[in-house]
Amino acid sequence: RSGEMAKLTQLIDNEVFRAYATYTTIVLLKMMLMSLITAYFRITRKAFANPEDTASFGKGESAKKYLRTDPDVERVRRGHLNDLENIVPFLGIGLLYALSGPELSTALVHFRIFAGARIVHTFAYLIPLPQPGRGLSWAVGYAVTISMAYKVLKTALYL
Amino acid sequence: RSGEMAKLTQLIDNEVFRAYATYTTIVLLKMMLMSLITAYFRITRKAFANPEDTASFGKGESAKKYLRTDPDVERVRRGHLNDLENIVPFLGIGLLYALSGPELSTALVHFRIFAGARIVHTFAYLIPLPQPGRGLSWAVGYAVTISMAYKVLKTALYL
Amino acid sequence: RSGEMAKLTQLIDNEVFRAYATYTTIVLLKMMLMSLITAYFRITRKAFANPEDTASFGKGESAKKYLRTDPDVERVRRGHLNDLENIVPFLGIGLLYALSGPELSTALVHFRIFAGARIVHTFAYLIPLPQPGRGLSWAVGYAVTISMAYKVLKTALYL
Repeated sequence: RSGEMAKLTQLIDNEVFRAYATYTTIVLLKMMLMSLITAYFRITRKAFANPEDTASFGKGESAKKYLRTDPDVERVRRGHLNDLENIVPFLGIGLLYALSGPELSTALVHFRIFAGARIVHTFAYLIPLPQPGRGLSWAVGYAVTISMAYKVLKTALYL
Repeated sequence: RSGEMAKLTQLIDNEVFRAYATYTTIVLLKMMLMSLITAYFRITRKAFANPEDTASFGKGESAKKYLRTDPDVERVRRGHLNDLENIVPFLGIGLLYALSGPELSTALVHFRIFAGARIVHTFAYLIPLPQPGRGLSWAVGYAVTISMAYKVLKTALYL
Repeated sequence: RSGEMAKLTQLIDNEVFRAYATYTTIVLLKMMLMSLITAYFRITRKAFANPEDTASFGKGESAKKYLRTDPDVERVRRGHLNDLENIVPFLGIGLLYALSGPELSTALVHFRIFAGARIVHTFAYLIPLPQPGRGLSWAVGYAVTISMAYKVLKTALYL
């Protein structure tokens, strides 16, 4: 078993793969933070989606009024969904890209710009910044993912 | 080609990786089940989102009334989205964790608790259980993912 | 470092893994296209979700009227979410399946049918085609994923 382990850890010892592991973990943790921010706004704005979540505010009509949408809650939820839509492609295409043998320096440029763009996107969404702030940060992350996909298809194409 | 295959199957022969493969497949199948439950409630409650889905109920106004939201359908859809928000981080961070060389027993504890928490979360959402049942099951899965992310960053950090 | 690289590229040199990389990249790019289609409909239908997105249409009430939902925008968004719900399981289960040592020809059948089904599903949703066109294309992709999950659990099961 330790022989197999040695082979497995070769993957995590590779610098490109370590960089992928680091930046993927960072963007996934950032995405997970959106759940906490949603919970924060749901509690402070008293805006819930499930009747059982409002039970602590009393019974009947007094609790029912907290079953509502709130602009701040909906804004965080849109940001969370946008994360899912963009970080899932990065998760998959980035892994294949890391395994396609890119130069370390090139890979780092891709991973750093993607992670930076998604962090800027979150601030742009939550503050919110005037457009085209959010749009540009979205486009930068999108373009980085397309660039990685191009490298994957150039290296691995097998239809 | 069989030489390459041998190397590939070394990955799937590793016990930590096999455990990751097993529990990831289980939670992804569980998430896929939400689609079937949504379809079940859409059909039994006659609540659809697309005009073409109601065509079998007749034409014009008689079909249009089934283009509506239903509390049971929306509840399953919220559970499905919550799965996406939490299982995607597990998919990515869990893979990197499995490759970071954890002890088999430690890895099993992480994978089993995460899968158990997500199954409990689904029951808590659909029955529904009174709070904090659903909240706690969500938090347990969240904490397990954070714990795995910590191990990944400690082992692989390369900024 | 070049020694590690050699080992890593063994993965991407494997034909089954290359096929997985190719079809995964294709379906993820297809999913990313949904963002552009959403943006296209938001701009042409003038239907936005964020106040800052309508600022270029003027201030106050004249801009506020573009904060609205539009049937075409909502349709693309439902298609996008359906992609997430189905392509995330393919991403995870497909990776584990590719590592479980399937026959190349069997793996290609799985990957090609899944990618084809998701492309047909997108056309069925956006045109839209009458049912059961969309339902069938969804079910085919779903069944392919279940078949791969069965192979993963048969090969790797470790509870």
